[in-house]
Amino acid sequence: MDQIGRKRWAIAEGYIPGESHGPAPDMTSHEACCILNPSNRAAHVEITIFFEDRDPTGPFRFEVAARRTKHLRFNNFDDPQKIPRDTPYSSLIESDVPIVVQHTRLDSRQAENALLSTIAFPGD
Amino acid sequence: MDQIGRKRWAIAEGYIPGESHGPAPDMTSHEACCILNPSNRAAHVEITIFFEDRDPTGPFRFEVAARRTKHLRFNNFDDPQKIPRDTPYSSLIESDVPIVVQHTRLDSRQAENALLSTIAFPGD
Amino acid sequence: MDQIGRKRWAIAEGYIPGESHGPAPDMTSHEACCILNPSNRAAHVEITIFFEDRDPTGPFRFEVAARRTKHLRFNNFDDPQKIPRDTPYSSLIESDVPIVVQHTRLDSRQAENALLSTIAFPGD
Amino acid sequence: MDQIGRKRWAIAEGYIPGESHGPAPDMTSHEACCILNPSNRAAHVEITIFFEDRDPTGPFRFEVAARRTKHLRFNNFDDPQKIPRDTPYSSLIESDVPIVVQHTRLDSRQAENALLSTIAFPGD
Repeated sequence: MDQIGRKRWAIAEGYIPGESHGPAPDMTSHEACCILNPSNRAAHVEITIFFEDRDPTGPFRFEVAARRTKHLRFNNFDDPQKIPRDTPYSSLIESDVPIVVQHTRLDSRQAENALLSTIAFPGD
Repeated sequence: MDQIGRKRWAIAEGYIPGESHGPAPDMTSHEACCILNPSNRAAHVEITIFFEDRDPTGPFRFEVAARRTKHLRFNNFDDPQKIPRDTPYSSLIESDVPIVVQHTRLDSRQAENALLSTIAFPGD
Repeated sequence: MDQIGRKRWAIAEGYIPGESHGPAPDMTSHEACCILNPSNRAAHVEITIFFEDRDPTGPFRFEVAARRTKHLRFNNFDDPQKIPRDTPYSSLIESDVPIVVQHTRLDSRQAENALLSTIAFPGD
Repeated sequence: MDQIGRKRWAIAEGYIPGESHGPAPDMTSHEACCILNPSNRAAHVEITIFFEDRDPTGPFRFEVAARRTKHLRFNNFDDPQKIPRDTPYSSLIESDVPIVVQHTRLDSRQAENALLSTIAFPGD
């Protein structure tokens, strides 16, 4: 199969709401980075997080096996550190094989949840 | 008319909520793959679904007639198998003529519905 | 100023909910096609609407003046015909000067509104 | 690090809802332009706002430091002027170094908030 995807992606929006309504973990306010690796080789993925007022942190390292997807919750990142809540950030996703990246947030700060999603920005 | 579209598309995010509120089928939680075939030839479309922890399934086959659209609900896919609820997945959409693909979810797990949508990622 | 934009765009998703809650027209369920014409020439825009089970309709014709935006509600299209409610459709947007197109829906079928938006798919 | 991003971006949709529910400023209806500057040089950003029925306004000038993000709320723009509420607009974002731009709206006109987001349209 021909490859589809890119090795570098960026998500300019990032914000993990500190509040939630509804049963955890499904309805917990969260932000996700969904990665598809359609290739026949495992993808070694490094994510760097950028902030407004301090140096970037990372890389956060993940492996996505060949022909698998991984829906990563930024909420759960903890190595090298946790991502603070209620804080604007951006992310840069780099992989050694072409992948496809989509950004999604579920915001349940109020009683009913809201959703957003977009394909991330692909590097050249 | 010059053609617009691509033959290969990917959607990294995928998740069919298992719960719904409101009258079916309109307000049933669902995920859709909207396909536009603006060309003068029928499009033969094959969709492969990727998971986090098992081999991909498919292809799910659909025909989109010339100069027609088709709004496919992943909820209704059943050949070669149904797509499990509450399970992260990704999809790869391949066609023999250029098409345009957009991804949409309606989530009605809580009393009020939430929506997300994005143009899928086009292959080169 | 160098031009930004494309002359052909497609939106695969399309659906005007037939129900609404809240004060009209702001909270009326609607679908919009937002067009930016950053150029120094008026844009003559033609929109064709595609359906699942009948021939396309259009073109719907609009002019977007130089260095202006226009937020068109598909709900209000009526020449050559109205767009039916609760019916899946897609749209193709063609202009004689480069424009930028974004698709947005406000769905107020339930008590609280939901939103979706995506930059449309740009032709080559 | 190789650069990712573009120097010109457009957002065709723009609308700051005049009403809000919930505690300010978090749940105030707002529209944001999230900018990632992954490069090693400060980005000097100029944003021009286009309207339906009057000349564009701007530029609104911002600096995004090297390896930083900035989540700008259009609500807060005030130099050379404020952006009117309940008014359709579009925006053009220009930078002297490559950046990545994403558009997000939180709409809290009704009791529960709604969200939309999309990567902006990148210029060539």
